[in-house]
Amino acid sequence: MISKYVFGQPVETGAAVMEVPECTQPLSLMQTEQTPEGVRFFCGMDRMDVVYGLGEQMRGINKRGFSYISYATDDPVHTESRHALYGGHNFLILSRRNLPSFGVFVDDPGRVVFDVGETKLDRLEITASCDCVLYVIEGDSLNDIAGQFRKLVGRSYIAPKWAFGYQQSRWGYTNEADVCTVVNGYHGCGIPLDAVYLDIDYMENYKDFTVDRERFPDFAGLVASMKEQGVHLVPIIDAGVKVEPGYPVYDEGVANNYFCKEEDGTDFTGAVWPGRSHFPDVLNSAAREWFGSKYQWLIDQGIDGFWNDMNEPSVFYSEKRLKSIMDEVLSMKEEHPDMHSFWLLKDKLGSLANNRDDYKSFYHNMDGVKVCHDKVHNLYGYHMTKAAAEAFDRIVPDRRILLFSRSSYIGMHRYGGIWTGDNASWWSHLLLSIQQMPSLNLCGILYTGSDIGGFGCDATQDLLMRWLEFGIFTPLMRNHAAFGTREQEVYQFENIGDFRNIIRIRYGLVPYLYSEYMKAALTDGLYFRPLAFDYPADAHAPKVEDQLMVGESIMIAPVYTQNADGRYVYLPQDMLMVRMKSLEERHCEVLKKGHHYVDVALNEVVFFVKKGCMLPMAVLDENIKSIEGIDASGYEWIGFADDTAEYVLYDDDGLSKEYVPRSEWKKVTMVMAGAGTVNVRC
Amino acid sequence: MISKYVFGQPVETGAAVMEVPECTQPLSLMQTEQTPEGVRFFCGMDRMDVVYGLGEQMRGINKRGFSYISYATDDPVHTESRHALYGGHNFLILSRRNLPSFGVFVDDPGRVVFDVGETKLDRLEITASCDCVLYVIEGDSLNDIAGQFRKLVGRSYIAPKWAFGYQQSRWGYTNEADVCTVVNGYHGCGIPLDAVYLDIDYMENYKDFTVDRERFPDFAGLVASMKEQGVHLVPIIDAGVKVEPGYPVYDEGVANNYFCKEEDGTDFTGAVWPGRSHFPDVLNSAAREWFGSKYQWLIDQGIDGFWNDMNEPSVFYSEKRLKSIMDEVLSMKEEHPDMHSFWLLKDKLGSLANNRDDYKSFYHNMDGVKVCHDKVHNLYGYHMTKAAAEAFDRIVPDRRILLFSRSSYIGMHRYGGIWTGDNASWWSHLLLSIQQMPSLNLCGILYTGSDIGGFGCDATQDLLMRWLEFGIFTPLMRNHAAFGTREQEVYQFENIGDFRNIIRIRYGLVPYLYSEYMKAALTDGLYFRPLAFDYPADAHAPKVEDQLMVGESIMIAPVYTQNADGRYVYLPQDMLMVRMKSLEERHCEVLKKGHHYVDVALNEVVFFVKKGCMLPMAVLDENIKSIEGIDASGYEWIGFADDTAEYVLYDDDGLSKEYVPRSEWKKVTMVMAGAGTVNVRC
Repeated sequence: MISKYVFGQPVETGAAVMEVPECTQPLSLMQTEQTPEGVRFFCGMDRMDVVYGLGEQMRGINKRGFSYISYATDDPVHTESRHALYGGHNFLILSRRNLPSFGVFVDDPGRVVFDVGETKLDRLEITASCDCVLYVIEGDSLNDIAGQFRKLVGRSYIAPKWAFGYQQSRWGYTNEADVCTVVNGYHGCGIPLDAVYLDIDYMENYKDFTVDRERFPDFAGLVASMKEQGVHLVPIIDAGVKVEPGYPVYDEGVANNYFCKEEDGTDFTGAVWPGRSHFPDVLNSAAREWFGSKYQWLIDQGIDGFWNDMNEPSVFYSEKRLKSIMDEVLSMKEEHPDMHSFWLLKDKLGSLANNRDDYKSFYHNMDGVKVCHDKVHNLYGYHMTKAAAEAFDRIVPDRRILLFSRSSYIGMHRYGGIWTGDNASWWSHLLLSIQQMPSLNLCGILYTGSDIGGFGCDATQDLLMRWLEFGIFTPLMRNHAAFGTREQEVYQFENIGDFRNIIRIRYGLVPYLYSEYMKAALTDGLYFRPLAFDYPADAHAPKVEDQLMVGESIMIAPVYTQNADGRYVYLPQDMLMVRMKSLEERHCEVLKKGHHYVDVALNEVVFFVKKGCMLPMAVLDENIKSIEGIDASGYEWIGFADDTAEYVLYDDDGLSKEYVPRSEWKKVTMVMAGAGTVNVRC
Repeated sequence: MISKYVFGQPVETGAAVMEVPECTQPLSLMQTEQTPEGVRFFCGMDRMDVVYGLGEQMRGINKRGFSYISYATDDPVHTESRHALYGGHNFLILSRRNLPSFGVFVDDPGRVVFDVGETKLDRLEITASCDCVLYVIEGDSLNDIAGQFRKLVGRSYIAPKWAFGYQQSRWGYTNEADVCTVVNGYHGCGIPLDAVYLDIDYMENYKDFTVDRERFPDFAGLVASMKEQGVHLVPIIDAGVKVEPGYPVYDEGVANNYFCKEEDGTDFTGAVWPGRSHFPDVLNSAAREWFGSKYQWLIDQGIDGFWNDMNEPSVFYSEKRLKSIMDEVLSMKEEHPDMHSFWLLKDKLGSLANNRDDYKSFYHNMDGVKVCHDKVHNLYGYHMTKAAAEAFDRIVPDRRILLFSRSSYIGMHRYGGIWTGDNASWWSHLLLSIQQMPSLNLCGILYTGSDIGGFGCDATQDLLMRWLEFGIFTPLMRNHAAFGTREQEVYQFENIGDFRNIIRIRYGLVPYLYSEYMKAALTDGLYFRPLAFDYPADAHAPKVEDQLMVGESIMIAPVYTQNADGRYVYLPQDMLMVRMKSLEERHCEVLKKGHHYVDVALNEVVFFVKKGCMLPMAVLDENIKSIEGIDASGYEWIGFADDTAEYVLYDDDGLSKEYVPRSEWKKVTMVMAGAGTVNVRC
């Protein structure tokens, strides 16, 4: 049951797609109070209660013990004490041990604070603006509450099947030769690859919808020749549009008032990669349609995937703020610079980027209504992505385009996925990415993954290998690294054969992973789930922070600590442990319900099959280069049951938007002669 | 067996105290090569080999998979990718599975890089300067190698017994009233407290060896009245001396050439807390004696403990570098500040602090020899602390003074302890501090601990409680927090009774902890040990990264993850699990060798007693205020044995430097009637 409560005059975010009548009863599950910061909802928590959700945030699956701020922020140093990352995902479930559980969705695109027991250990406190909509969702189970919420906010974005292949990115592939080097690097080692990303380097002076002609003399030709090898090129699109008279995107935006405005009506200017930039007013439907239509130029050259970046929007500095600081610096010229000027300069300079006062200083034209950006801050990345998705519907209505974004808000999950932003080559971020996955799924974001190996800092061979061993289970499986860091394409390291084996296991799993992703999307279900969602009666399951259910058949328990060659695993029921050194070299062993220490060598993939379940594994050609090469005519099956195992297999052409109706999903049943692999092709 | 190899013309560091003849045989356990950076020692590692040591560094007990740089650095953001912290602890042990293990000590006080498999997974590579001494230590066991090394570098510093009490610090206790508030805060809740720290706020304009008279009108009186309540005041001493004519420390330093010099012979000027400052040349024996003698003024006022800080030495900026940057900024005045000037300014400003080029630009007078600071950088904190310790030997020859430092080098362990610097209120830093303890002990640093609750960022109640549950086992048990962070004295939170119980357990453990610390110090042993040191034949022990042996009788397995109410524990032998909700509320249970999941509620302390061992627990008065109040006339004993348990108890007056000779240590033997507590007072 969903109850809707309206406070003040909320902005229409488009997050909810289902009509819910406003509730006439007073809110009972939480108390409400008006505070100077806005409206506050709060309640007590029992020591054993667990809070799930909040999407892309720091810390664990259980969000207790910290405060989380929904205010999209481009901050690349994701330490434990960061309160905000790139998204605004205002849905949580309070899972209560002794009382019915419930979900809360705060539909407020401005700054919202979730104090989940940071200030007081056993108190949940949510502070939104005075203008917001609160949805409270009661249900029979965690899965039921999650499912109701997902129905409320609508079907998740569906990516093309090729986007489930292995993908390589790096900030620093500057020309055609760089791209070819990557593709040859992988293919030369016999490793399949479905996409290479183009970071900001491919553009002409960082101008959106341009390609540098010197470095990419025949872009369409490159795109086509790559596609012949099974490799899709995926260019980045940034939010900021370079201020440069004569550059059509700039000229059109200015002429039609398509950019965000200062109070006085002039175009707001902030600096991002291209230097002085304006920001398309994607909250205005005409500007959105215009900006979306610009993607066509790249689609016409054969591009079928995009990543939208810098759309918090990130602002290195606003022109007016930098100017005032420079004036201050210049005015304090002295013989001996002193501590005061040093700290002043340092503080001021440190506060330039993504300054909230800048966000408060510019405006959107929401189809006639002037709205301060700060109030709708979290809608920006969402609507930039919506601009692209709506354009794709016009340009290529029948075909899926890969699309994901850095910034997002609930509602955007219908238009694209996200990656988890600029993480680092830290073991703690491998764990973080494991923990973020179910939280993101709860908020509707299914097509997602972290930068495998870590974006910032230098990756080590073992970190990359362990991260890949987890990454083979995430829909978006992309290795990405920042400019200036150690090169982390797998062929830069030793033991390339081990990397090849791990990536090939991914391709073997694709029939299962794609089937589970599609079923989750089409039924508003969860692809990644915390253990407690599947085992509500299990007292230990809610404590497990480092294992996930992936689809209907399996559980994973990735290794995420350096130098470990094993880990503890909790099995909430008897399961079949599948240990793989390669796709072909599998060992299966039945483990009993309970706690286990499991050895996992650095080059091994281990996962667990639930009793009564099975999964398909593709049989791969030795030379498979991409997802296209997977033979779908028959699979090997791994199952575990006393008698009969069952699996519902979804498959389609991976490209069209006509999905197979549920009644036609293929049910596969097999009689098991004990646990283990069934080498039946079907 | 210790083999000594000399390269070039090494600086005499004083790290080693034992005469070792130079080895005439070529180095065989590692290969050597000359590189442009200096001399390099390298060897391969087997997948199962473990590297221990390196003292205060990031990452795990097993140092494999990363590079560590010995170059003392004041960097307060200790993420996983930091290569250097505050110390230079150049000793490691390569524990080999299939070949004899060996230890390596690189006696080089300049920059030394330990690439422990970061660049290549299975290669250890150490790069020192061309002028260094290499000691290679072979032995029968890990403990034997560690013990030989400790004999080489001499007996560790011994703290007074009161320094084993609970201690409270905060950057921000600015006056007498603040100090009284803290003491009353603790005593008002019935919580014992042995020390309150005075951070930089107590000084007059951050001038060493001054006390602000307005904020502390009767300092000696305050010290005395605090001591009557069992509380020692521990002031900070910073390395930099304020440039201020008329301030005696400055005047004397200038007059006698006691400060570090620029190339041209003028005093080097850098900015730290007092603003423009000079740096005492503590590598010069006359300057060292002079600087040490300054501590007397505080000792005369009743002070008996100090912490030396900012002695990497930290330099916020050198005057010359800031001036050149400011000139550059001023010269780039333009109508529109652009990206170029923004990044330039940001990069330049970011490179000001602790710039290696500054360290290369000033000099020491090492008793007649002019030595560039960069070459001996890691000796600075060591010799500042030596200055104090040598002065204490002159001023109060018979009495122990508490002394610890932020920066250190092996050799300094004879003069004082360290704390692990400016950590943060992060769960990962709780784990880090657990992992740093045995590494520090290996390098001779026994009196140590981390800032409990975390220095930077905001602590939560659960983090502080879990950290205290580990901190009760560290010799230095100090709660410390930075200016501007959430107040984290335990009485600022709820559930103060739980905090009181945990801290009282510490006081109950003091007879054991002090005994073990003293025995470790007097026998060159390890107070904290990785499990593999005690269980060399156990195949799983080397993999355990989050449990420690503490003294001879017990093993700890702290909880260091948020929201966990239990954890996995590996027992390398049968042990007695002791679970305490308070000192008086104990439950004992025998657990078998192997893997266990152990529940540990947020307010519980759990530890494990080895078979055949026992430990004393003090019986505390309900109103005990400090260590002085512990009744040493008899203890309760907790033991675990089939028949007889034994313990060697060390005790002394805790203050004099006449230690009890080994022949007089008290052996306690008890016949056990099964496992559990023996309520015998003896």
